Amino acid sequence: MRKEKDSLGEMVLEDERYYGIQTERARTNFPVSGINESAYPKVIHAVACIKKAAAMANHQIGRLDAETAKAIGRAAEEILEGKMDDQFPVDIFQGGGGTSLNMNVNEVIANRANEWLTGEKGYTSVHPNTHANMAQSTNDVIPSAIHIACYDYIEDLIPILEQLERILERKIKEFEHVVKIGRTCLQDAVPITLGQEFSGYKGFVERNILELREVQKHCLSLPLGGTAIGTGIGVYPGYVEAVYEHLSSITGVPFHQDRNLFDGMQNGDFYLKVSAALRGLASGLSKMASDLRLLSSGPRAGLSEISLPAVQPGSSIMPGKINPVIPEMVMQICFQVYGNDTAIMLAADRGELDLNVWEPLIIKNLSESFEWLTNGIRIFIEKCIKDIKANEKICEENARSSLALSTVIAALFGYEKASGLAKEAYIKGSTIKEIAVEKGILSEQEAHLLLDPFVLTEPEKSSPLFTDYLVEHRMEK
Amino acid sequence: MRKEKDSLGEMVLEDERYYGIQTERARTNFPVSGINESAYPKVIHAVACIKKAAAMANHQIGRLDAETAKAIGRAAEEILEGKMDDQFPVDIFQGGGGTSLNMNVNEVIANRANEWLTGEKGYTSVHPNTHANMAQSTNDVIPSAIHIACYDYIEDLIPILEQLERILERKIKEFEHVVKIGRTCLQDAVPITLGQEFSGYKGFVERNILELREVQKHCLSLPLGGTAIGTGIGVYPGYVEAVYEHLSSITGVPFHQDRNLFDGMQNGDFYLKVSAALRGLASGLSKMASDLRLLSSGPRAGLSEISLPAVQPGSSIMPGKINPVIPEMVMQICFQVYGNDTAIMLAADRGELDLNVWEPLIIKNLSESFEWLTNGIRIFIEKCIKDIKANEKICEENARSSLALSTVIAALFGYEKASGLAKEAYIKGSTIKEIAVEKGILSEQEAHLLLDPFVLTEPEKSSPLFTDYLVEHRMEK
Amino acid sequence: MRKEKDSLGEMVLEDERYYGIQTERARTNFPVSGINESAYPKVIHAVACIKKAAAMANHQIGRLDAETAKAIGRAAEEILEGKMDDQFPVDIFQGGGGTSLNMNVNEVIANRANEWLTGEKGYTSVHPNTHANMAQSTNDVIPSAIHIACYDYIEDLIPILEQLERILERKIKEFEHVVKIGRTCLQDAVPITLGQEFSGYKGFVERNILELREVQKHCLSLPLGGTAIGTGIGVYPGYVEAVYEHLSSITGVPFHQDRNLFDGMQNGDFYLKVSAALRGLASGLSKMASDLRLLSSGPRAGLSEISLPAVQPGSSIMPGKINPVIPEMVMQICFQVYGNDTAIMLAADRGELDLNVWEPLIIKNLSESFEWLTNGIRIFIEKCIKDIKANEKICEENARSSLALSTVIAALFGYEKASGLAKEAYIKGSTIKEIAVEKGILSEQEAHLLLDPFVLTEPEKSSPLFTDYLVEHRMEK
Amino acid sequence: MRKEKDSLGEMVLEDERYYGIQTERARTNFPVSGINESAYPKVIHAVACIKKAAAMANHQIGRLDAETAKAIGRAAEEILEGKMDDQFPVDIFQGGGGTSLNMNVNEVIANRANEWLTGEKGYTSVHPNTHANMAQSTNDVIPSAIHIACYDYIEDLIPILEQLERILERKIKEFEHVVKIGRTCLQDAVPITLGQEFSGYKGFVERNILELREVQKHCLSLPLGGTAIGTGIGVYPGYVEAVYEHLSSITGVPFHQDRNLFDGMQNGDFYLKVSAALRGLASGLSKMASDLRLLSSGPRAGLSEISLPAVQPGSSIMPGKINPVIPEMVMQICFQVYGNDTAIMLAADRGELDLNVWEPLIIKNLSESFEWLTNGIRIFIEKCIKDIKANEKICEENARSSLALSTVIAALFGYEKASGLAKEAYIKGSTIKEIAVEKGILSEQEAHLLLDPFVLTEPEKSSPLFTDYLVEHRMEK
Repeated sequence: MRKEKDSLGEMVLEDERYYGIQTERARTNFPVSGINESAYPKVIHAVACIKKAAAMANHQIGRLDAETAKAIGRAAEEILEGKMDDQFPVDIFQGGGGTSLNMNVNEVIANRANEWLTGEKGYTSVHPNTHANMAQSTNDVIPSAIHIACYDYIEDLIPILEQLERILERKIKEFEHVVKIGRTCLQDAVPITLGQEFSGYKGFVERNILELREVQKHCLSLPLGGTAIGTGIGVYPGYVEAVYEHLSSITGVPFHQDRNLFDGMQNGDFYLKVSAALRGLASGLSKMASDLRLLSSGPRAGLSEISLPAVQPGSSIMPGKINPVIPEMVMQICFQVYGNDTAIMLAADRGELDLNVWEPLIIKNLSESFEWLTNGIRIFIEKCIKDIKANEKICEENARSSLALSTVIAALFGYEKASGLAKEAYIKGSTIKEIAVEKGILSEQEAHLLLDPFVLTEPEKSSPLFTDYLVEHRMEK
Repeated sequence: MRKEKDSLGEMVLEDERYYGIQTERARTNFPVSGINESAYPKVIHAVACIKKAAAMANHQIGRLDAETAKAIGRAAEEILEGKMDDQFPVDIFQGGGGTSLNMNVNEVIANRANEWLTGEKGYTSVHPNTHANMAQSTNDVIPSAIHIACYDYIEDLIPILEQLERILERKIKEFEHVVKIGRTCLQDAVPITLGQEFSGYKGFVERNILELREVQKHCLSLPLGGTAIGTGIGVYPGYVEAVYEHLSSITGVPFHQDRNLFDGMQNGDFYLKVSAALRGLASGLSKMASDLRLLSSGPRAGLSEISLPAVQPGSSIMPGKINPVIPEMVMQICFQVYGNDTAIMLAADRGELDLNVWEPLIIKNLSESFEWLTNGIRIFIEKCIKDIKANEKICEENARSSLALSTVIAALFGYEKASGLAKEAYIKGSTIKEIAVEKGILSEQEAHLLLDPFVLTEPEKSSPLFTDYLVEHRMEK
Repeated sequence: MRKEKDSLGEMVLEDERYYGIQTERARTNFPVSGINESAYPKVIHAVACIKKAAAMANHQIGRLDAETAKAIGRAAEEILEGKMDDQFPVDIFQGGGGTSLNMNVNEVIANRANEWLTGEKGYTSVHPNTHANMAQSTNDVIPSAIHIACYDYIEDLIPILEQLERILERKIKEFEHVVKIGRTCLQDAVPITLGQEFSGYKGFVERNILELREVQKHCLSLPLGGTAIGTGIGVYPGYVEAVYEHLSSITGVPFHQDRNLFDGMQNGDFYLKVSAALRGLASGLSKMASDLRLLSSGPRAGLSEISLPAVQPGSSIMPGKINPVIPEMVMQICFQVYGNDTAIMLAADRGELDLNVWEPLIIKNLSESFEWLTNGIRIFIEKCIKDIKANEKICEENARSSLALSTVIAALFGYEKASGLAKEAYIKGSTIKEIAVEKGILSEQEAHLLLDPFVLTEPEKSSPLFTDYLVEHRMEK
Repeated sequence: MRKEKDSLGEMVLEDERYYGIQTERARTNFPVSGINESAYPKVIHAVACIKKAAAMANHQIGRLDAETAKAIGRAAEEILEGKMDDQFPVDIFQGGGGTSLNMNVNEVIANRANEWLTGEKGYTSVHPNTHANMAQSTNDVIPSAIHIACYDYIEDLIPILEQLERILERKIKEFEHVVKIGRTCLQDAVPITLGQEFSGYKGFVERNILELREVQKHCLSLPLGGTAIGTGIGVYPGYVEAVYEHLSSITGVPFHQDRNLFDGMQNGDFYLKVSAALRGLASGLSKMASDLRLLSSGPRAGLSEISLPAVQPGSSIMPGKINPVIPEMVMQICFQVYGNDTAIMLAADRGELDLNVWEPLIIKNLSESFEWLTNGIRIFIEKCIKDIKANEKICEENARSSLALSTVIAALFGYEKASGLAKEAYIKGSTIKEIAVEKGILSEQEAHLLLDPFVLTEPEKSSPLFTDYLVEHRMEK
C-alpha cells in the first residue's frame, strides 16, 4: 500500500495500482454504469499521444529536462501498447469535463515514470500535474483527444464501408439481368432491375465514404495549446509549434491548431457534426436493411423477390420459420445511433461560457455509434448481403403484371388514354399488354417490343423504340 | 391614435387596437415565424377565464370594486366569444416566459373595460397590471392556462378516438370471418383473422383513451395563486379559494391548486407527460397506418390483402396508380408529433431555478400535436378506415400456404418432427397439409380438420381438436 | 464436447456449456457491442419465472408430466439464484424479436433438466421447444418478461426516490430560515426561502414517485398466453388461468393477462410510456442538478448562495478549483436517458403487423435508463445533496437588494408608481427600501416591516401587513 | 364554374381557380394543419423553374412544339412573379410523396397556358401530365425542388450570419480591454477578456458559414431526369443535358445530375445533412444566447458582467424587471430546430425501396428551420447583440478575486504549492495575490506584475514574465 495526497487530503492506495488518488476519488464518486474509461481505448491512447508530444515539446523548449520527458514518453508508450489497460477504472459518467480521465492518465504516467526514475511509485520525481500535465489542461487535452479518436474511428469505419461497396458492386453485376417491379408508396410502379436497386445502395455508400472523409478533415483541427479556457495560460513560447510537430509525428496524422481556440473550447458542434455523419449513414443502412426485410418477406405470402441466407432458426414455436435477423440487428444499431445522437445533441446544446463540459458523455455516445456501426456493417456483409439470392422468376412476373406499364401508353398516346386503359386492366385483372392489344392500341408485336419490362429499365433502350414507333405513326405533337 | 406608456417610455398606437404598448413592443420584438398567439385560441381563452375568475375572486375578498370586476369579466367574455381574435398579434416565438401573452390579454381587457367605464380606451379606470393582473403573475397564469387548454384539447381528441374505436369495432365485425396469415419479422406465421388484427388496433385506441383520461386528471392541478415564484406574493387571504371556485364555475371543470406551488412553477415535466401521451398515441397510429400501407401494397405485386379507398390519383407519370395517401398523411403527422416532443423535451429539461420560462414553445408544440392528431385521425377514419375492403380470397390462400402451420405438427408430435416437415414443404413447394398427408403423419381428414387456418385462430376451437386427436392416438406424454 | 442439431444443421459445443446450438449460432451471428444478455439479469430472471410458471401450469392441466415440470422448474430456479449467469452470451443487438434470448433460456433449462433426469446434457428427456417453451412463444414470453423486469426496476428505483425525498425534507427544514432572492429568466425576482426552493424539488420527487407507481400498475398486464401472434395457438384449456396463478405466486406480484392480446403484441407504446416516465424524472433531476451548479457557482464570482461538498479536485491546471462533478454526472445520465428514449421511440414507432420485434433494443435502453438513474440518484444524495450548505449571508443580502421588492409597492400603490420607483432605484444603485423612504412613500418603520424579504415569502405573513397598511391609509380601491 | 376529370371521376371547380381537379381532391383530402403549400414559396418557385426548364428542354429535343413550351414557360414565370400565390391550397401534411404539390403546379401551369392558347382554362391544348409534366415525375421533380430551395435558403441565411460575424467583430474590438473571469463548470477559472469570449462566438459563426457553403455544394446535385424511380422512363435522348442547361440558366446556379439516380431517389440523408447543419448552427446559437442570459443575470444578484438592451418590460407583477427576452426567443427557435430535426430524421429513416415519400414533411421542417433561424438571428443582432454593454468594473473585480490565479503559482512553483495556497486563500477570504505576498512567495511588486489578470489572458504577455522570473530565481527544473 502507498499513500497519496491531493488538495482534499490523503488516501491509501494499493501499491500495485498505477493510478493515484484523484483517480481513486473519481472511481468511488461515479459508480453509475460500470462502463469505465477503459472501454474507450482510442480516447485513452489519444490522451497518451498528447502527453508524450507535450513532454517532448516542453523538453524541446527547455521547460522539462530530458530524463523526465523521456520517462513520461515511455510511460505514454506503455499505455499505447495496452500494458495499462486495467488502470482506467473511472466510470464514463463522470462530472468535471473529463478532468478525472485526464488526471487518471497523468497519474498513471507519473507513477510509472517515477518507478523508472526512483525505483518506486509516487510523484517525487515526476508529478501528475506539474510534469505530466505541463502546459496542458483537461480542457484542451480531452477535446483534442476526442478529435484524434474520431479520426481513428473513421479510419476503421471506412475500410468496412469500402468492403460493403465492393460486395454491393458484385451484387449489382449478379442482379443486373433481374428485372423486377419498382415500388413507390409501396405501390407497383415501373420496372427496374434488382441490380439498379442495389446500385442505389452502393451509391449511398460511396457518398457516405466521401462524407466521412470530409468529416475526418475536421478532426485535424485541435484546441490543444488553449489550456484552461483558450487563452493558453501556462504555455511557453515555442510550445505550440513543437507539440503539434511531435503529435503529428507520433500519430502520423497532420493535426493542427484551431483557428480560434475560444470557439474550439466553447462549442460542441464538432461532435454533433460527427454524430450527424454517423446518423446520416445509419439512415441509409436502416433503409437498406428495411428493404431487404421487405423484399425477402414470405416465403409464401410476402414479396419474396430475394432470399436472405438463413443464419439461425427463427421461432421458438413455429418450426421452419427463418427471420431476417441480420437486417434487424442492423436496424437496431441504427435506432441506437439516433438515440446516441440525441444524447450528444443535448451535450452540444448545453455548452456554457468558456467550455463544453459534457465530453465524457460525448465520448461514450460517439464511440458506441462508431464501434457498433463498424461491427454491424461487417456482420451485415458477411452474414447477409454477400449471400443474397434473387428469386428471378417472381421478380420478372411481378414486372410484367404491373399496371404502371401504362406509363408507356402515356408516353405514346398521352396520360388520359393511358389512365383509362390502366383502369380497365385493373378491373379486368389483365395486364397492360393484354388490354393494349385487345383494344387494338398496339399490335401484339409492338406490345411485345414496347412493353418489355427489361427494355423499360433504361431510357437508352426504350426511348429509341418509342421514337421509332412515334415517327412511324406520325403521332408526334 | 392614442398614446400609452410603460417603464421603457411612450408609444403611439392605432386607437382601434385593444392591445397596448407592451403587446406592440413584443409584436415588433419577435417577428420570427408569423405564427401568432391568436393561433392558439384555447390558450388565450384559458387566460381569459383566469382573468375573469381572478377579478371575481378579488372582488369577493374586497380587493376590487364591483364595477371594475364586472368590466374585466365582460371583457374576458368577449375574448371567449371570439370577438377579440385579431387582438393577439405577438409571434409565439417570444421570450420572457409568456409575459407578452399575459400582458396582451391584460391590455386587451383593460382597454376594453376602460372603454365601457370611461367611454375611451386607456388605463385610467382599469389598469392592465394593477387590475387585470391583480393577484396574478405571468408565472402562475400562463402555466395554468396551458393546463386548462390541455384539458380542453383532450376533450376534443377523445371523441375522435371514440369514433375511431367505433369504426374499428365495425371493421372487426366485418372482418371476423376473413382468415389470413399472421406475420412476425415480416415472415409468414400462423393464421389470424383480419378481424383479430383490427381488434389489436381497437385495443390500442381503447387503452389510449384511458391513458388520456389519466393525463386529463393531471391537467386539473394548477399553480394559480403562486404568482411570481410560488410564494403567492400579492395574494390576499381568501383569494385562492375564491379564484378556484370561480374558475371551476366558469369552465365547468373542477380545477384545484397544486400541492406544491414551487414544484408547479419550477418543473416542466407535466408538459412532457402530455406530449408523451400524444407520442404514445402517435406510435400506434403510425404503426397502424404503416400496416395499412403494407397490407394494401400492390395491386399486383404486393400483399394486397386489403384495399384502401382511392381518394386521388397517385402519380403524375404512372397512369392508374393509386397511393395510400391518407395513411401517409397520418404517418407524417406522427413524425411531426415526435419532433414536437423533442422540442418540448428540451424546454422541460431547461427549466431553471424558480420557473420554467419556455412556455411559449411548449404552447406551440403541444397545441400543434393535439390539433394535427385530432384532425388527422378524423380524416383517417373518414377517408380511409371506414371504407377498407378485405381481399378475402388472397387472405385465405395465404393462410393455407403458410409453412407456419407446422406449429400444429409441433403441438402434436414435437418441435423437431415439425421442423423437418416444414423444411421439406419449403423445398418441395408444398403445403404443410400436403406433406403431412403424403408422409402419412395425418390422414387427409385429420389434416383437413386440424390444419384449417380458421380453426387455428382460436385455441377455444383448435385445442379441443388437438386434445381429441392426442387422446385418440394416446400420444400424450 | 457434445453435438446438437437444429433445422439448419449440426454443431459441436463445449459440453460444459448449458446453452445450446441456437444460442451458439446467435452468439456468432451478433458480435456487435460486447454487451450480452447477461447484462440484463432482471429480464433473464423474468423469463425464468415464466418458464417455471408455464411448466407448472402445463403440468396442472395435464400436458406435462410431473418429473419434467419439476426439472424445468428447478433449472429455472438455478437461473434465479444466479448460478447460470455466464450462460447468456448473446449480444443484446440481436435480430428476431428476442428469439435468441428465449431460446437461450430454453436451452439452458433443457440441458440442465436433462442433466438431472438423464445424467447428461442434451434434449432427450426435456426439449427446449417442446417442453421448456410449451404453450409459449418468444412473442408472448419476451414482452411479458420486459413488463416483469420493469415492475422490478421500478421497485428498485422508488426506494431511492423516497430516500431523496427524505433528504430533501431534511434540507427544507435546514433551509427554511434562509431567505434569498428568487429568479425568473435568470433575473432578480421577489424573495423566497432556500427551503421553499428545495420544497419544489421535493414536490417534484413526490409526484414522480406517484407517477412511477401508476406506471408500475401498467406493468402488471402481460400478453403471456398469446403465444405467436395473440391467437394463443398451442395453448390448452386451463393453461392461461394456471400460468398467471403460478407466475403471481412465484413473483409475489399479481400479474394478469392483457385485455386484448393482439394489441399487447402489436404495440410498443407501453415501453415508450415507461421511458417517458423515466425521462420525465430525468427532466426534473437535470433541472435540479443544473440549479445546484448555478446556485453554487463561484466561489468568488458566481451566485455562491450554496456550497456543494467537495468530492475531488476540479482541475489539472487550476489548483484549488472544485467542480460540481456530482450534479454534472447526474445531468449526463439525464441526457443519456433522453437519448435512450429516442432509441425506444424509434423501436415503438416501427412495430409492424402482428408483433413489435425490437424488444432487444428496448431491453437495453430501458434497463440502462433505470439502472443509471437509480445509481445516479443514490450518488446524488450521498455525495452531494445531503451535505449542501447554505451561504446565508449572501442569500439574505441578495434578497434585500432586489429591485423586485417593488412588487410590494405595486401591491400598495399600483404598478405604475412601483415601476417608476424601481427604475429610480436601479439607476441610483439604491435599494427599493431606501428609495421608498427617501421619497416619503413609506416611513422607515413601514418600510422595515413591509419590505422584509422573509415576510414576503409567505402571503400569510405579508398580506395582513399589507391589509393593515391599506386600511390605515384608506387607500383601498 | 368548369368541369375537370381525372381517373377517379369528374368534379366541378370555380372557374377562377387555376388549380384543377387533383389539387381540389388533395385540398379536401388533407385538412390537417392549415399550413398550405403556399407557405413554402421557395419550393413552389423551384418546381416552377423545373417546369420551365423541362418544357424548354423537351422543345429543344423536338418533343414539344414551340407554342406549348412557351406557354408553359410563361405560366411558370407568373408563378415565380408571385401572381399565383393563392393557387396552392393543399395542406403540407399530404401523403403521396408530393404528388399533390407537383400536380398542383402542373394544373396551374396547364390551365394558365390553355387560357393563353385557347382563351379559356382547361387542358385541351396543354395537359398537366402530358405536357407540363413531360419527361418528369413527382419523384424526380420534388426532391430536385427541395435541393434548389435549400440552396436558396442557404443563400438567404449566410448574409445574416455574415452580418452577425461583423457585429461580433465590432463587439470583440469594443470588449478587448475588458478583463474578466473565465468559467468552466460554472466555477471561477483563469482570466479572459470579454473580447476573447466574443471571439469564440465569432469563430463559431465563421466556421458555420463555411459549413453551410459546403452543404450548399451538395444542393447542386439533383435526381432530375430519373423520373419515376431513377430509370428515367419517359425521358428522350438529349433531354437530360438540355434540362440542366436550361435550369442552370433560369436559376443562375450550376445544378447537375446525381451520379447515381437510384441513390438520389431512395435516400433521405441529404435532407438530414442539411438539417444537421442547421442544428449544428442552433447548438452554438443556443449556447451563445444562454451565455448572454447568464452573463447579464442580475441586475443585483447575478453575474451582471454585461447588460443587454431592454426591449420590453419583463414582468406583469414585478415592476422594473427586465428579461433577456431576445436570447430566450433565440433559444426557443433552436429547441424547435432540434425538434424539426427529429421529424426529418424519422422521415429519412423511413425511406423505402425506390423512393423516400416523406418529402412534404421534410419541406415543412427544413423550411421552418431555415426561415426561423434566419429571422431569429436578424433580430438577435438588431435587438440584442449590437447593443450589449460590458460592466467593466464588475468584470475586472471578478478577475482579480479569482482563486484560479493560483495557476500562476503552479506555473512557477509547481501544482502542490499552488494548491495549498489556493486553499488558504479560499478559507481566509483573501485573494491569491494577498496570500502570495503575505507568505513571502512573491514580493508585492512581483505579485502585481505576475498576477495581473489582463496579462494572463495572453501567453505572449505572461510567459516572458514567468520566464524572466524563473531565470532570475533559477528555479527552472
